[in-house]
Amino acid sequence: MKFSPLVDALIQSLQCLPGVGPRSAQRMAFQLLERDRSGGAKLGSALQSAMSDVGHCGSCRTYTEETQCRICANPKRAQSGQLCVVESPADLLAIESAGQFDGRYFVLMGHLSPLDGIGPDEIGLDRLDQMLADGSWQEVILATNPTVEGEATAQYIADMARQHQVAISRIAHGVPVGGELEYVDGTTLALSFSGRQKL
Amino acid sequence: MKFSPLVDALIQSLQCLPGVGPRSAQRMAFQLLERDRSGGAKLGSALQSAMSDVGHCGSCRTYTEETQCRICANPKRAQSGQLCVVESPADLLAIESAGQFDGRYFVLMGHLSPLDGIGPDEIGLDRLDQMLADGSWQEVILATNPTVEGEATAQYIADMARQHQVAISRIAHGVPVGGELEYVDGTTLALSFSGRQKL
Repeated sequence: MKFSPLVDALIQSLQCLPGVGPRSAQRMAFQLLERDRSGGAKLGSALQSAMSDVGHCGSCRTYTEETQCRICANPKRAQSGQLCVVESPADLLAIESAGQFDGRYFVLMGHLSPLDGIGPDEIGLDRLDQMLADGSWQEVILATNPTVEGEATAQYIADMARQHQVAISRIAHGVPVGGELEYVDGTTLALSFSGRQKL
Repeated sequence: MKFSPLVDALIQSLQCLPGVGPRSAQRMAFQLLERDRSGGAKLGSALQSAMSDVGHCGSCRTYTEETQCRICANPKRAQSGQLCVVESPADLLAIESAGQFDGRYFVLMGHLSPLDGIGPDEIGLDRLDQMLADGSWQEVILATNPTVEGEATAQYIADMARQHQVAISRIAHGVPVGGELEYVDGTTLALSFSGRQKL
C-alpha cells in the first residue's frame, strides 16, 4: 500500500487504460483529486453506464445502447442500396465526417486473422451473408484498411458477395490530398498509377 | 452526436484526464468497450468512491479517506521528532520509497505563488505553525523542489520555524548518483561544491 486504499485502487484501475502506466496513472489520480473532482465523478458514472449498457447494433454491429444504431434506424440511409464494410466504429466515424457517403454500414469489429483464431464468423460475415441474401442491396463498398489483413478480408468478402448479384467495389488508394509526391511510398504511388482515371 | 449518447458521453468525460484529447479518448473508450469491460467498470466505481470519499489527512494534509493517514497514525513515526515538509503526495511517496526517513511529513499541496493567489494559508502554513508550536518537534527538514517557488517556500518556512526552537535543515542538492559530471548543469555543480562535506 502506497497511499490510502481508495487512492491506491484508483491508481491501479487507471492502468487499464491503453498507454497509461503507473506514473501517468498517479499523475491522473492526483490531478483529478486536486483539480477536477466533479469531472472525475462524471467520468466514473459514464464508465459504469457505458460498460454495462453499450452493446452492438443489431444490423451493422457498431457500438450502441439501443437495438439499432441511429444510422441503421434512419430509413433514408437504406435508399441508396449501398453498404459500406469497415473494420471499426472509428473508421465509420471517419467516413461519416467526410460527409460523402449516405448509405449504410457494416462494421466487422476487426479483420480476418486465422493465426489469432479470428475467422469469418468472428467478424460477423455470417450475418453479412444473410443481409446480402435479402436482395435489397445494389452495391457493397469495401472500405477495410489497406493492410495485408484488410486486403485479405476485402478479398474474402468480395468472393462471398459475388454469389448475391450485387456490385462490389473497393475504395481508391493513392496519393492523399495535401500530400507531396516526393514523400509518398512506392506501393501507394504504384496503386495511384494502376488506379488512374480518365479525364 | 457522433456515436450513441452513452459512448459520446464516455469519450467526452475521458478528456478530463490530463494529456487525453479527443483522439486518445476515443481510442480508450473503444479499447475498454472491446477488450476490458470489467476493468472499465472497476475504474468507474474506483473513480466514484475516490472522488467522493478521499479527503486530506488531519495532520499532514496528504490524501486519505481516513481522518489521519497511515503514516501520521503510526506512533513510531513521531518518535524521531523529525518533520519533513514536501510539496505533494507524489514527493512524499518518492521519499518513502527511498526508505531512509522514518519521521513524519507535512504536505503543502503546492508552493507559495503570490501571483496565482497562493499565499501561506493556502498551503497550510497556519496549521504547520500550530504543529511546530506544540514543542514536540526537534527538526524540520525542508524537502520542497529546487525551483524558484520551492526555494522561496523553503525560505519562508525556515523563517517561520525559527520562532519555535527547532533545528531547520534543507535536503542536499548536488550531482545525482549515476549521473555524469559532464552532463550536470552549472547551478547543480555549483551547489555540489558549496555543499561539499569533509571526509
